[in-house]
This record gives sequence, structure tokens and C-alpha cells, in this order.
Amino acid sequence: MKIKVSDYLVRRLTELGITDVFGLPGDYNFNILDAVIKNEGTNWINCTNELNAAYAADGYARIKGYGAVVTTFGVGELSAINGIAGAYSENVPVIKITGVPKTSLIKEKALIHHNFSEPDYYAFEKIYANVTTASAFLTFDNAKSEIDRVFDMFIKLKKPVYIALPVDVCDYLIDDTIPETIVKSNSDSLKAASDRIIELLNTSKNPLIITDYLMKRFRLQRELNAFVQKFNIKVTSMIMGKGLIEEDLSQFIGINYAQLGNEDFRQIYENADLMLCFGTLFSDLNTLGFIVKPDNRFKIELQANYAVVEGRIYKDVWLNDLMDVLLNSDAIIKKPAPENVFKGYQGIETSAAPIKTDDIFPLVQNFLKENDTVVVETGIISASCANMKLKTSSNYICQTMWGSIGWATPAAFGAYMADRSKRLILLTGEGSHQLTIQELANFFKYGVKPVIFVLNNNGYTIERILSNDPDDEFNNITKWNYSKVLELFGDGLPSKYFKVTTSNELKEALSDIDTKDFDKLCYVEIFTDKMDIPKALAMVKECIKNAKSC
Amino acid sequence: MKIKVSDYLVRRLTELGITDVFGLPGDYNFNILDAVIKNEGTNWINCTNELNAAYAADGYARIKGYGAVVTTFGVGELSAINGIAGAYSENVPVIKITGVPKTSLIKEKALIHHNFSEPDYYAFEKIYANVTTASAFLTFDNAKSEIDRVFDMFIKLKKPVYIALPVDVCDYLIDDTIPETIVKSNSDSLKAASDRIIELLNTSKNPLIITDYLMKRFRLQRELNAFVQKFNIKVTSMIMGKGLIEEDLSQFIGINYAQLGNEDFRQIYENADLMLCFGTLFSDLNTLGFIVKPDNRFKIELQANYAVVEGRIYKDVWLNDLMDVLLNSDAIIKKPAPENVFKGYQGIETSAAPIKTDDIFPLVQNFLKENDTVVVETGIISASCANMKLKTSSNYICQTMWGSIGWATPAAFGAYMADRSKRLILLTGEGSHQLTIQELANFFKYGVKPVIFVLNNNGYTIERILSNDPDDEFNNITKWNYSKVLELFGDGLPSKYFKVTTSNELKEALSDIDTKDFDKLCYVEIFTDKMDIPKALAMVKECIKNAKSC
Repeated sequence: MKIKVSDYLVRRLTELGITDVFGLPGDYNFNILDAVIKNEGTNWINCTNELNAAYAADGYARIKGYGAVVTTFGVGELSAINGIAGAYSENVPVIKITGVPKTSLIKEKALIHHNFSEPDYYAFEKIYANVTTASAFLTFDNAKSEIDRVFDMFIKLKKPVYIALPVDVCDYLIDDTIPETIVKSNSDSLKAASDRIIELLNTSKNPLIITDYLMKRFRLQRELNAFVQKFNIKVTSMIMGKGLIEEDLSQFIGINYAQLGNEDFRQIYENADLMLCFGTLFSDLNTLGFIVKPDNRFKIELQANYAVVEGRIYKDVWLNDLMDVLLNSDAIIKKPAPENVFKGYQGIETSAAPIKTDDIFPLVQNFLKENDTVVVETGIISASCANMKLKTSSNYICQTMWGSIGWATPAAFGAYMADRSKRLILLTGEGSHQLTIQELANFFKYGVKPVIFVLNNNGYTIERILSNDPDDEFNNITKWNYSKVLELFGDGLPSKYFKVTTSNELKEALSDIDTKDFDKLCYVEIFTDKMDIPKALAMVKECIKNAKSC
Repeated sequence: MKIKVSDYLVRRLTELGITDVFGLPGDYNFNILDAVIKNEGTNWINCTNELNAAYAADGYARIKGYGAVVTTFGVGELSAINGIAGAYSENVPVIKITGVPKTSLIKEKALIHHNFSEPDYYAFEKIYANVTTASAFLTFDNAKSEIDRVFDMFIKLKKPVYIALPVDVCDYLIDDTIPETIVKSNSDSLKAASDRIIELLNTSKNPLIITDYLMKRFRLQRELNAFVQKFNIKVTSMIMGKGLIEEDLSQFIGINYAQLGNEDFRQIYENADLMLCFGTLFSDLNTLGFIVKPDNRFKIELQANYAVVEGRIYKDVWLNDLMDVLLNSDAIIKKPAPENVFKGYQGIETSAAPIKTDDIFPLVQNFLKENDTVVVETGIISASCANMKLKTSSNYICQTMWGSIGWATPAAFGAYMADRSKRLILLTGEGSHQLTIQELANFFKYGVKPVIFVLNNNGYTIERILSNDPDDEFNNITKWNYSKVLELFGDGLPSKYFKVTTSNELKEALSDIDTKDFDKLCYVEIFTDKMDIPKALAMVKECIKNAKSC
């Protein structure tokens, strides 16, 4: 059957489970938005600006598998690009769709708004090619084949892609058959790699899996948890992979940040005789400034579409196929049941003294429930959250590699839209929060009732730590009265602001939220000293400073 | 003498009159910010996010001649790029400086945060090359020559440029001699072109100058005003050039939008026998959807570095040199003194009925003073502002060609910082305002006391007009309680919120601001119906719809 290009594009989104499309309207994308709205399987979500829309789509994709953002030409898409670049950096599959002026204008190089004074209709696709794994500028002739080519890459590699769609091409009729994307390993390579991995596992006494972000992107959470339980293999996660492993499993020994100051973790790590890296990235912040370095125990590395075993590269071995073989293998010898060593934070005694940043995480950990989605901003908080023990069936997301401050607030909105059955917890700092605060308005519009923790330490504390002088004026930011935030953005939804200056107050706020305020949007502002550095960060800071990353 | 690369770069900013540098700190740009702060001639201005910083630098450059924005690598610079692209589109000289990781990391392709999982240290310069007229990635070897090359282009062409500066290259010592940038026309071409222009002027009975944005960028305001007065030449301006001509001059016949419905303007325009285009751009919105079309009377066109006279191109003729020759010519015969025809809006009778959008502009016009800086958001307001008569020595800025909604609020902040002696008036709509609202916090931090008019028409009215159905859900935006805006962002500065629902209330608010509230930040929210379309826009809309631009 023939359908419109715009409808075909939207149908392909639906096929991938994308039920919510983020973005802003603009002259040149109305046809696309109409197609999104008219399609039964998709909702249109207006964001407050395009960067926020891209962050929201990123948060959504981290939970749901894929995300989509639509903006107008030039102005809209360039505002969104940092969000897409972050998704590219962290292998999050977000499709960026741009509504473009009609074909005749492109051909004439017409001097139309949202373009340069010397028009270049292809400049933005060229720009996006740097932050996407495939991009296309659709025409009447290529629309079907280019959409299919781009989606093929999107589905296979789980990285961002870009499509530019002119207004008139939207309405052009094309065949509606969706071709199958075949992601299939070379069976010889797959067998050779898995056989050797199984041999190594069986001859190893203390194997340790180091898992990471790619396992999330390839949706292998369930398989990975089943695998470590089935064969009793101990597992740690790099910080980008936090949330992959159910943290109450006895096989889980904690996040690799625990190498700093956790003796149980250190012993298991040092005694391991085989390291299996599952979808890992050895970046500076993921390795504590390159402290976690592969040594001769690191014999197995699984990446998206290849495996490395004892230095030998097995091409065309897809992560999903390999996990499937490993999980269903009956050749793997089960190891002895490990003892549960990961405890998370210990409880603290609260008091009426000014709260320390380190008081926050034990109390928040205690507050967490099963089925929470926890969204954490990069900066002063993320290192401390590494050690916070999550309850069963939680989501945990944090943008670590790209580390764009401001990401967390809109990403939390997107993450909630991806799974509305979970409670949303957002942990951010006031420095980051300012960049993208207007997205809070969408929590009200869509009836989202998160618990938002805002650490107000009077400036960019993370940069006070890293820059030459903590008192450098550029680390001072504008002072806001956050107690008014809910009144500005609020529209009908029950909400409550909590001011916290002591650990007693935080405990009380959390108790209120648990017992009587749970059906409200709760906004907890926690005041700490501008140079109150949490222990975890102080340790990470030392590593990073000694390392080569700054 | 030898100085640090960062100090040399900052010295070059100072040389161009840049006293305020906008941006955000981030690990990789601390050295640059230190240099800005330590340099006596420059202040560092922290913005609330990078896009806002770029918009602020754009607003600053439109008033002061040049602007600068500094961000960190990857995350920061990509958030800012839409602001730089807008400056590129509208020929606004803004320099984008990025702090980059140190050289050894670049050479090793180190896996450092703010980069991709397959690092590409040059990706962002490649991206920026699409929206700048010159870009450079500095190294120890090329720092001096590349800074000088980029500044040469910056000064000559008044378009955005880009510099990537690695942390360690910052501290490298280079020669501090600033080379002269020579912008000099070919004297034969200049003479030939100007002679012929003068002949045409002298043989013309009713010459009409159409002036536009490039005259602003090349800082020819004074010369142009002197020229039309000296020789009594009538002048109109395209909307991008509004503010160039003192609007009480009898030579000024109004903005070219006046062709719709203004008989005086139409007669002068039709009776003109010679059209002189000074720095014009014939883009869709600048020409009312291509209604203003060159015909055989359009014999003279002056652009940045060339002139076209009767179809003949004179290369290497710079706008400034040509204006200088024309202004100082004693061969031009003075025309008879024209009658003043541009009156702006007529006064209106206010009432207690719900206010109409068309009521706003006559009242605001009446409220304007000498020495105002008026910043206007693209969208529903800008067409109506075209006909609003400005007082002497006003600045007027609006982003028309690029038309990125949200630009006006941060641009207004930047415009104020560029000339703190002028009162700041910002006119925006609530749809646009939401995208960048956090920059209001900087008004408080820097003690800026603007009068802000926010037209609240309950959604994206401009897009209700342009899209298929005014009630399309994507034109509904989140509802905010703007009366709380000053409480959230406010910190010490006296401020006042005015709610306006009738023209009586607007008149009263303006009178209060004039008499007792003038020393406050005043925020005037004006509520109109969501489909209340001002007359000027209705006319423009018809033109645009009939034209080929959508």
C-alpha cells in the first residue's frame, strides 16, 4: 500500500516502541507533527525548548530503548544538537527529525528565514553528520530507501540518526512495507568466541564481570541478571552501567568506584583471575581517571558487534547473540554461591546541625523503593550516588561521558514518559538545574509527580574543586529563590516545596513524602556549604587530578 | 614582548572594544576565563546557559560592534551554536572561543569526558566551520598566526569566527604585536563607483535609499543619518535595518512594511525614480514575502566589500569607504527639503474592554523615550513594531532572518551590557520567553532595570496562524504563573509585576513606570486572546502565505 512519507516515518517510530515524540513546532515541521498526532500509537510532547526536547528524548530512549525528537529547520535543530551529541557520545538511540522548507525553495536557494544570508540548505545535515551514525536529506526520489537505510543503522547500532524532511516530501506517497532489519552474527565467529569464553570461564576460579553502558543500550538487562545468577558469576559495573544489575543480588559487588575505600570490593577485584568486560567504555570518569586499567586478567571484551577474546578479534559477533548463547549454555560450570558484600550506605544519625552533602545519600537510599526511576545529574552528586543501593526493578540514569550540565531535569521528564508506572526521583544541583529549569513546567502539564532533590551549594562547586581558586568569580551563579519555583511553573497539580538545612529536616521531609505527600510533586531544596565536598567526590577528584584528564 | 596566548587573545578582544565577555565556566576553559578576569579592560559575565550566552553576545555585538562568548569543549559549544548560527545568518560579529583539553590528550585521542566514545577532538571545529567565516584550532606552532588570521577576517567581514584553544596552549608565550587589519578599497574602483552613483543621484528627481542591516554591522549609522540630511535624500529601511535612521528626520518615510496600507509611503515609493540599496538583504520576511522586489529603478546596491551600479560590479569597494566618499562629496546636488510623512502610530482611546494586541503598540510608542534600547522578539510582535516611531538616539534590535524564538530575552541582557546608559525595553511573547527565561536572573545580578512586556496570548499564536489548524495541540504551551517570575529570579533588586487585561490598565502601568516605578525592573504581562492577530501581522501573513516562503 502507498502512504505518505511522514506517515511512514511515524509508523517506523511506532514499530520501535516509540509512543512519545518530543520537540517543538515551527513553520516547516507542521506536517510531521500532524502525522505524529494523527497516528494512533504516538503522542506529541511539546517541550519548552529544543535542547530540553533532545535531553527528554535521550532520557526516554535510555529507559524505553529508542527516542525521537522533532524540530524545525536551522534554529530548532541547532538548539537541539548538544542533546543529540550526548546521545551519540553515550550510544543512546535517538532519532532527530527536522522539518525542512519545500523542495522548490531548496532548488532555488531561496532567501528564507531560518537560513543564512547566503542560504545553505544542507549545512545542518552536514553538521549533524558529525554527531549521528547515519543521516539523510529526503527527496521525492530517495525518501523510502533513505528512511530504510537510516533506520537499519539506527536499529543495528543504537546510535543517533538524523533525517531532514522537506515540507512537500512529507505528503509524497511511498510503499508502506517495512523491511526487516537483520542483526545476525556470523555463526562460526559466534561459536568460536563463545566456546573460548566458556572455556576461560570454566578454568577460572574467580571470574569477575565488569559490565557497562552498552548492555543497557542493547537491552540486555534481563539476560545479564539471569546469567550472573544462573552461574554465580560476580559482577561489578562501571558507573555508566549503574542500574544494570539488581543491586540486592549477592553476585553484585558494587560499582567500580567502590575501589576507593571499600575493602570487600578491593579484595574481590584483586583476587579475580578473569575479567569479562561486557559493553565497557574505559573513559576517564568511568575509570576514576584511568585507575581502572585493563591488565593481563582482562581477557574478554564484548562490544556491540564484535568480541575480543585473549587479544583475538571476533568480527560480526553481536552482543545480543553472544549473551543468548552464554545464558543458554549448559557447558558453563556454576560457581559457588557468593556472599552478599554490597551494602550501600550505612544508616546515619541525623541531627540539627547544618547538613553535610555526605548526609544526603544514606537518607535518600533509605527512601528509595522498588520500581523507582532515579535520574542523577553529572557533577558533585553522581560520584556519591554510585554507592547508593537501589531497590529491585529500579532504573538509574546519569550522563557521565558527555557530562552536559542541565541534562538531568529534562531527561528525568523523558524518562518518566517512557515508563509512567515508576516513581521518578531526580537528584540535581542548583548550578545544573538553572540551565534547563523550564522543563519543570511539563511535569505539571503531564501530571508527573517526581521527588526532586536540588543540592544548593551556592555555585558550581564541582568547578570550584577543579579550577585554580575555589573563589574564582566565574563559579558564582545567580541566586534564585527556589521556594517559588513551583508557583511559577505550577498549574493545578498538587506540589510541595521542602527547605532542608539539617539532616533532621531531610529525614522529616522524606518521611512526609512517604506518608502524606506522596501524591504531590515534591521539591526538596537542600542547602550545604559551597565547599562541602562529599567523600566520594574528594576521592574521585584526587584520582582525576593525578590522572591525565584535565 | 612575549605574552601568553590567552592574554593575547583577550587583548585582541579589548582592541575591538569588547569589555564584557559572556559564557559559562567548564573544565577546559578556566585559563581563558582567568585571562578575561585578570585583564583590566574585560569583565566576565556568567550566563545561565550557553545558548543564552551566545544570544547575549549577539545582542551585545549588535549594539557595541563586536561580541565574544566563551564555553567549554563539546557540551558547552554545541549548546551555544544556534546563537552563533543566528549571528552568522545576520552578519553579527561574535567570536566563539572554546576551551579544549590539553594537547597530549588530543594527540593520544584520549577517552575524556565531553567527547565521543570514539573521540574526535576536531569534530566541533568542523561543525562550527559551517556557521562561521573563519575558524582555527590553536596549537603551540600556529597560535599567533591563526589568531591573527581569524581576527583579520572578523574585523573585515563582521561575521562570527571560532577559535578552539587547548588548556596548555593558553599558557604558551607568543609575540604580543597586534598586526594592523587593512580594510582598504581599490581606489580606482571606489572612484568609478562613487562617481557613477553621484551622477545617478544628481540626474534623479526622486531618489530613495533603502537601507538595511549591513549598515548597522559596519557601524555606519552616523554617516548614513548625516548623508540623508546633508543632501535631503529620502530613505526607508527594511525591517532588519529598523533603528538605523533617526525616525524623526523628515527624510525618513518609514519601514518598508509601510507599503501595506500607508498611502504616503506608497506614493513616495512608487514615485521614486532611483533606488539606492545600502546593505540590503532581500529575504522573505525582510521583503514581505518577496513583495518588495528590485525593478529597473534599483540601480545601486552597496554590500560589505563590493558595489553594483547599473548591473556593473565594482569589486574591492568597502561600504565604509564608499559612505565616506558620498558623505563628503561636494558634487552631490542637494534635493528639496522633504515633508515629514512618518508619524508612527496614532494615539488611541483606552478603555476597560479586553485589550487587543493592536492597542499595545500605540501606547508603548508613546511611552518610548530618547536613548532607549528596544529589543523585539521575532513572532507576533515584530511586524507591529515596524511602525512604532522611535525617539532620537534609540537602539532597536530584532532577529528577523534567523528568527530563533527565545533570542530576545538574553539578547536584551547583552544589549544592555553593551550600553548601560540607555533604558532597556524588551517586547516578547510568552511562547518565546519560555525558551530562555532563566536569563532574567542576570538582570537582577547586574542591577539591570528593564521594562519587559510579555504578550501572553496562550500559546504559539504565530504558529496558529501559519499551521493548518489554529487549534493544533502542538501550539498549546505550558501555562505559567508569570506573576511569580520576579520572586523566583529576584535577588534584592526592586522590581514590580503588572498584570494588564485592558488598555486602561496598560496606560496606567506605563504611567506608573514613568512616574514612580522607573527605578525598578518592571515586568508587564499583557493578556490577549489566543487568536487576536495584530493588523500588521495579518497583512504580512497574507503576503507570506501568497508568496513562496512556506
